[in-house]
Amino acid sequence: MIDELIERLKKGDRKAVARLITLVENDEEKAREIVKKIYPLTGKAYIVGITGPPGAGKSSLLDKLIREARKEGLIVGVIAVDPTSPFTGGALLGDRIRMQGHATDPGVFIRSMATRGSLGGLAKATNDAIKVLDAYGCDIIFVETVGVGQVEVDIVKTADTVVLVTVPGLGDDVQAIKAGLMEIADIFVINKADREGVDATYFELSLTLDFEAEKWEKLGWRPPIIETIATTGKGVKELWKKIKEHKKYLESSGRLEEKRRFRIEEEIKTIASGIIASKVEASIKKGELEDLIRDVLAKRIDPYTAADRIIMEVM
Amino acid sequence: MIDELIERLKKGDRKAVARLITLVENDEEKAREIVKKIYPLTGKAYIVGITGPPGAGKSSLLDKLIREARKEGLIVGVIAVDPTSPFTGGALLGDRIRMQGHATDPGVFIRSMATRGSLGGLAKATNDAIKVLDAYGCDIIFVETVGVGQVEVDIVKTADTVVLVTVPGLGDDVQAIKAGLMEIADIFVINKADREGVDATYFELSLTLDFEAEKWEKLGWRPPIIETIATTGKGVKELWKKIKEHKKYLESSGRLEEKRRFRIEEEIKTIASGIIASKVEASIKKGELEDLIRDVLAKRIDPYTAADRIIMEVM
Repeated sequence: MIDELIERLKKGDRKAVARLITLVENDEEKAREIVKKIYPLTGKAYIVGITGPPGAGKSSLLDKLIREARKEGLIVGVIAVDPTSPFTGGALLGDRIRMQGHATDPGVFIRSMATRGSLGGLAKATNDAIKVLDAYGCDIIFVETVGVGQVEVDIVKTADTVVLVTVPGLGDDVQAIKAGLMEIADIFVINKADREGVDATYFELSLTLDFEAEKWEKLGWRPPIIETIATTGKGVKELWKKIKEHKKYLESSGRLEEKRRFRIEEEIKTIASGIIASKVEASIKKGELEDLIRDVLAKRIDPYTAADRIIMEVM
Repeated sequence: MIDELIERLKKGDRKAVARLITLVENDEEKAREIVKKIYPLTGKAYIVGITGPPGAGKSSLLDKLIREARKEGLIVGVIAVDPTSPFTGGALLGDRIRMQGHATDPGVFIRSMATRGSLGGLAKATNDAIKVLDAYGCDIIFVETVGVGQVEVDIVKTADTVVLVTVPGLGDDVQAIKAGLMEIADIFVINKADREGVDATYFELSLTLDFEAEKWEKLGWRPPIIETIATTGKGVKELWKKIKEHKKYLESSGRLEEKRRFRIEEEIKTIASGIIASKVEASIKKGELEDLIRDVLAKRIDPYTAADRIIMEVM
């Protein structure tokens, strides 16, 4: 079945793409088989990560960026990483409403990815889905993360170009998040630039970048700050131009290969952790865990000792 | 040294508390030794998780909640989980500025926790820090997470009472986050309730809760929705009252023990994954990883095969 799906993928069958992504998302064994088989077909797509706090208008911006890419005839893939319930594990957004305008365009493939229960599960599934889209023939793949947590950052930081979207006048912890994401961003966007406080936000970002002036000089790239109004499309052309400039910079400086080397390293580690985590999960006997919990609850043992007993079973 | 610090902790020495938290945060071996030794002293503190999107005003709200708890003579611990750079791994916020009013109050202990590189590292460090504060004698410990990602949710969902803070009129993806956090929240707060759109947000949350009316009836607790203005203190007394009501409900229904059983289960699993992850990390030989990356980059092997070779070394 997988071989047939991959054959259809090679012929440009969109349904095969969707099926393959569902398989890599839900079935660890099949994910492994699929990635092994399509791996030689990958490596051509350019990956753009888009991240930032909730409510920054990332989806609207992405919608407009897709249009720019399509105008140039590029085949576009979009992976929207959704925050989901830790209990149900289901996707809540589905494909984003604002991007539905592209639903009938055969040159655009949009897919939402849901958070899985296991740590690292989402990062692994996203990496695998990128490979399917890459093998399918996407020239550019946008990866949008809606959260601002560690896992979401881990996902986006392996992209070739990372776009950080913010808005004027949010609270204090948004400042912290911007700071936390500062080092992974290649391009800054201040969206909703018709809002009050845009100049202050620009000034503040610019000042933060000034602190690392030496670093940018050494790198040969200082992250630009672009003001956009996604709803009207203002500034989107400039953003698209900067994404292409950053791509050229990476290619000519040799940093693209460096980035991809880093991505592969992260990927190998993520897969390894995932495999080990499932082995541990699988080897914990339900009754035994209950006994350990009871002992910890009664303070007969501490949680570290309980964890040691579980590990002794596996390693 | 650790024995001496624990002796000082028992006598109420705040500096010993700070030192012990720094140790559990930075040193895996010492964390294990400390938790083993203080574990019999823990289990008395009540844990309140506070989460929600950035800019929702969680820190201001927490500041006011601390005042309510102090009025009743409770010893208060606060752990603020910070989003940080995936590269430097350092805390960016430090202790929150708005909570500095309590800095000279010996009955309040505020601590920021930084995101560590390893998956699960932050959750483990937070759990251990909670234990130090618990052993110190805190009656109530607030755990605030600033992010809305999977790791942050994992941390907060083990609290006894989970408070979800939102604000009126944010974007679409905030709706998704609210939905994602819906199942872990025991109390909803609409902060900045003087803003436009508060009625719509209230109505929408209320409607979402109505969909699960049966579940709440079965549980015996329907999450209340409280409107607050953290900056003026409006609604904070009611929120504090609801937190205490939820505590009573958990105690009388037997669900408190259930929650704590769940917390211990999560904790044992987190510690086990952490130990295994470090073993994997430690056993990867730098040169060997470089070779594997080169092979994957050249498409001689795929990332799964590379991960297998690493695991073969450890397990």
